[in-house]
Amino acid sequence: MIGIIMGSSSDLKVMQGAIDILEEFQIKCEVDVVSAHRTPQKMIDYAENARANGIKVIIAGAGGAAHLPGMVASCTSLPVIGVPVKSSNSIDGWDSILSILQMPNGVPVATVALNASQNAGLLALQILGTSDMEVAKKLDDYKENLKEKVAKMSHDVRAKQ
Amino acid sequence: MIGIIMGSSSDLKVMQGAIDILEEFQIKCEVDVVSAHRTPQKMIDYAENARANGIKVIIAGAGGAAHLPGMVASCTSLPVIGVPVKSSNSIDGWDSILSILQMPNGVPVATVALNASQNAGLLALQILGTSDMEVAKKLDDYKENLKEKVAKMSHDVRAKQ
Amino acid sequence: MIGIIMGSSSDLKVMQGAIDILEEFQIKCEVDVVSAHRTPQKMIDYAENARANGIKVIIAGAGGAAHLPGMVASCTSLPVIGVPVKSSNSIDGWDSILSILQMPNGVPVATVALNASQNAGLLALQILGTSDMEVAKKLDDYKENLKEKVAKMSHDVRAKQ
Amino acid sequence: MIGIIMGSSSDLKVMQGAIDILEEFQIKCEVDVVSAHRTPQKMIDYAENARANGIKVIIAGAGGAAHLPGMVASCTSLPVIGVPVKSSNSIDGWDSILSILQMPNGVPVATVALNASQNAGLLALQILGTSDMEVAKKLDDYKENLKEKVAKMSHDVRAKQ
Amino acid sequence: MIGIIMGSSSDLKVMQGAIDILEEFQIKCEVDVVSAHRTPQKMIDYAENARANGIKVIIAGAGGAAHLPGMVASCTSLPVIGVPVKSSNSIDGWDSILSILQMPNGVPVATVALNASQNAGLLALQILGTSDMEVAKKLDDYKENLKEKVAKMSHDVRAKQ
Amino acid sequence: MIGIIMGSSSDLKVMQGAIDILEEFQIKCEVDVVSAHRTPQKMIDYAENARANGIKVIIAGAGGAAHLPGMVASCTSLPVIGVPVKSSNSIDGWDSILSILQMPNGVPVATVALNASQNAGLLALQILGTSDMEVAKKLDDYKENLKEKVAKMSHDVRAKQ
Amino acid sequence: MIGIIMGSSSDLKVMQGAIDILEEFQIKCEVDVVSAHRTPQKMIDYAENARANGIKVIIAGAGGAAHLPGMVASCTSLPVIGVPVKSSNSIDGWDSILSILQMPNGVPVATVALNASQNAGLLALQILGTSDMEVAKKLDDYKENLKEKVAKMSHDVRAKQ
Amino acid sequence: MIGIIMGSSSDLKVMQGAIDILEEFQIKCEVDVVSAHRTPQKMIDYAENARANGIKVIIAGAGGAAHLPGMVASCTSLPVIGVPVKSSNSIDGWDSILSILQMPNGVPVATVALNASQNAGLLALQILGTSDMEVAKKLDDYKENLKEKVAKMSHDVRAKQ
Repeated sequence: MIGIIMGSSSDLKVMQGAIDILEEFQIKCEVDVVSAHRTPQKMIDYAENARANGIKVIIAGAGGAAHLPGMVASCTSLPVIGVPVKSSNSIDGWDSILSILQMPNGVPVATVALNASQNAGLLALQILGTSDMEVAKKLDDYKENLKEKVAKMSHDVRAKQ
Repeated sequence: MIGIIMGSSSDLKVMQGAIDILEEFQIKCEVDVVSAHRTPQKMIDYAENARANGIKVIIAGAGGAAHLPGMVASCTSLPVIGVPVKSSNSIDGWDSILSILQMPNGVPVATVALNASQNAGLLALQILGTSDMEVAKKLDDYKENLKEKVAKMSHDVRAKQ
Repeated sequence: MIGIIMGSSSDLKVMQGAIDILEEFQIKCEVDVVSAHRTPQKMIDYAENARANGIKVIIAGAGGAAHLPGMVASCTSLPVIGVPVKSSNSIDGWDSILSILQMPNGVPVATVALNASQNAGLLALQILGTSDMEVAKKLDDYKENLKEKVAKMSHDVRAKQ
Repeated sequence: MIGIIMGSSSDLKVMQGAIDILEEFQIKCEVDVVSAHRTPQKMIDYAENARANGIKVIIAGAGGAAHLPGMVASCTSLPVIGVPVKSSNSIDGWDSILSILQMPNGVPVATVALNASQNAGLLALQILGTSDMEVAKKLDDYKENLKEKVAKMSHDVRAKQ
Repeated sequence: MIGIIMGSSSDLKVMQGAIDILEEFQIKCEVDVVSAHRTPQKMIDYAENARANGIKVIIAGAGGAAHLPGMVASCTSLPVIGVPVKSSNSIDGWDSILSILQMPNGVPVATVALNASQNAGLLALQILGTSDMEVAKKLDDYKENLKEKVAKMSHDVRAKQ
Repeated sequence: MIGIIMGSSSDLKVMQGAIDILEEFQIKCEVDVVSAHRTPQKMIDYAENARANGIKVIIAGAGGAAHLPGMVASCTSLPVIGVPVKSSNSIDGWDSILSILQMPNGVPVATVALNASQNAGLLALQILGTSDMEVAKKLDDYKENLKEKVAKMSHDVRAKQ
Repeated sequence: MIGIIMGSSSDLKVMQGAIDILEEFQIKCEVDVVSAHRTPQKMIDYAENARANGIKVIIAGAGGAAHLPGMVASCTSLPVIGVPVKSSNSIDGWDSILSILQMPNGVPVATVALNASQNAGLLALQILGTSDMEVAKKLDDYKENLKEKVAKMSHDVRAKQ
Repeated sequence: MIGIIMGSSSDLKVMQGAIDILEEFQIKCEVDVVSAHRTPQKMIDYAENARANGIKVIIAGAGGAAHLPGMVASCTSLPVIGVPVKSSNSIDGWDSILSILQMPNGVPVATVALNASQNAGLLALQILGTSDMEVAKKLDDYKENLKEKVAKMSHDVRAKQ
């Protein structure tokens, strides 16, 4: 199971991309609001118990001074994927990116692009795919599908000229 | 008493400025290493018990994805002063500054300039000075002293021309 | 009493967050327009007399080359909280932030996030709370309330899945 | 097995951190120089055959316009961890970070901090740990060890005061 | 013939500027969608065969972690002109610019301004003009025309005063 | 007479360029240390009396949150030239530049490049040259001299090939 | 007379601020479109003849790679005021600012804030005011007027509380 | 013939990379110092006569407010390659890059990476190679050579493990 958390329900529309791709791959996920700054103890409890609760990868989205992904990573040895969210209180996303990416030695966060929750979901699937061949197979199919979409776009663009 | 914390003893040389100015004003401080990412539970305990332990203001220094000041602020209603440290793993200090400054609504951190631990100490003294007239008086004297130093510099520079 | 000043009445809509939170805590504030660049002498007089006028903390908001917070801090030993305002003449707020944050040794400004006047108000309350247990108690209640709001969001998000 | 690749042997001193941590955990790795810009076909072959060659996670380091991690990710469904390298031809690392982080939908790269190859190694171990309990156990021990180091630093700093 | 490629048909509206200016100069171009990240092998084939296919200059537009221009340049010795596209997933265009511009020694990309596909087309024409005097002549006429447009603007602005 | 001021005698080595060029043009200048943050009232007095004291242009250098040029400009209708200084407490000079450049409507500061005190001196001379033909003539000679230096460099570089 | 030039009539709406303030002060100005990149020889002629044509100060506005102010400054010893324009092809104005501000030794441009053409006009007036007491007097009145506007805003804001 | 120009002989050590690669390919180049800001008329003459003088491509290097490449491009229809130089007066190279890259519609400059004069030389060769098959052949050989260097590095790095 994949755990998807965010600091506020206002981040849900950005994080939906992760939920959707996991659903498309029929991988169960658990979505919750956990705030580093408003519910620090709940966050620690969430992270410390995540493995025991059957979670294999945690996806955490946050904006501004985005401490959630890094703090969760400090409390679990599960891989944590951080999604920098360009929230209304963010400076063009730079604060979110740097707060998540620049973790010190010993506590990595797997950071994806600004608002890229779909990619966070795909990365979680790739992690599952290191030990689950069915997921790996589906990811290869997904890649083929991307190619076909480009082939279709190529066809359309060439037809227009 | 002022609590001064930092994520690693390697930050001590930057944070010494705060210790020195408090000593100059004869205000007791307690210095400790508390890491948001390596000792999250100790950090929470530190922050939650700070007021009961007689601490009035917390000064927290951190570099890179600097979560310590904001996370401590999330666990106490004492004022928390954040010192962005330009550590070796920082991108020219931008990550430290944005990770400390851009806190969400509800959880402020009083951020000072990059590496400006002396100013963090002075700000803590100004906070004490809102209810302690002796400290307020000393701060006014300190300001007078700054003026005199500029007068001396002015004299020297004018003499050179 | 908390003094809230800004360089232009156009900053009032951003600064309202500070006024509102102080009102919510029933702490009196005094709001004024004081411009560093257009009324420098008034600014100095305001700052030099603030303590005598019963002000305990000054909150100053400004945008662009935002000199008001730092200049006020140069004329008083009260704590000064700076709110960088993303005004129309600002470069995405970077100028406001750096002009307020990067004060030289000897003259700190407690800087909060871009447009974060509510946090400026809360920081002022935390400063009062270092000597006023009633305010401190209310701040703890406020923190509890934040937790409950997250719990509510958590419930709603989980219910949706 | 973990694959560690870099665009030039000049990146080896930065990437050594990943090699060392994997050795510390007794996880085999294979190190190679593969250049996106000088050996594009070799890069594609490397990525397409990585899973068949027994590689579970790829760590790719690159500087400047750092295309290696993203291009490798485009040719495999294995998780790819990108290490932005602050090479001599980089603009303070910003180009390396953005070239690796800002991947489009469909092709994630798990980005770590600038030069943070040790964290890349730890993230690879966390990924293995999702299905290998022995590695997970060692990661928990590693985390305990980080705590003890902070406790030692805390003791030393407190003793000095 | 000029080859114009882009990573997605959504970039077409930006890249139209190059198509239009080439048409204005009656130089044939071939437009296609080729994705570095979704069709890496097609991209390599495109680049390796471009010269044999009669292409003289390749114009490649891409946004975000924009690898297309640099990767195409790695597979051909034709001049490659890169157009950084400010796509929806770009951080104000900085990622696109740096990913295209900061190529390592040995593999140049001729980078033009953000979204400046018309200039990419003109640069391609200037390249043709190094050996085709007719194109060179038309470019000189085009320059004269720019002057006349400014003369007209000058006349209008002066008339208004 | 030209007034040259700076916030600290540590800025003197940067500001020397202005002093030297004025001396070269035999224009009198008066150098002083005036600190916006440590001697605000002296700064206001300096600015308000500058015209009466025979000063025609004020050159003000400052680093970090550089308020001196803008605050001086707020207290005089003389032209004020601001020199952003890359001091030790500056973030690569960005804070100095933005604090000086981004002045609000009504209070301009003529900003020159980072550390460019020589250009500040030349700009002051150009201002004098609007009403003093002797200075204007010398500036034209200076420009000729620049051309000759380039001609010499051109000769040397061509000789080397 | 003040010369006001811009690279395109599309910059006129930004530059109008300079025209308006000069008109308010009853100082004659001459407005023209002169493009560094499309009419380089006209630009040089304009600059070289400006002093002879009775121009005392040149105000030049430009966006993107904004070469007009610096190039004009290279061809005249009159003071040149540069207005960075945030045009549609500019990266948030950073390119315009740096292209105008960062002039090499020997060729200063007096740079004002992004889009701040009104301040460019005021700076031109301050330059005239160094030798024209009537203009200087009007500038002092203008400053008084700014103060009164703030007093009015102060009154209104205080009345609202 | 390739024309290589720079604003000052101090840029020669950076621009040497272009000279060396052209020599390696036995393509004649002409090196000169031409300053946009100190010898504007010479610059215009150089550019206007370049084609008639047998120059096919112009490589122009400049730092800070780097106007040389763009201004040369405004006076010729030859392709102009701009090399942003990280000179001592540059802000980490950002000013040089943006001043060269962000040219307006109608006047492209082919910009290469910061200090990347070797790549500028290679790009010039690629341009020649669009009509000179001997140069194109040598470029393909050069590319092969890059591959072999990587193969050698790969061998050495693998041998070390």
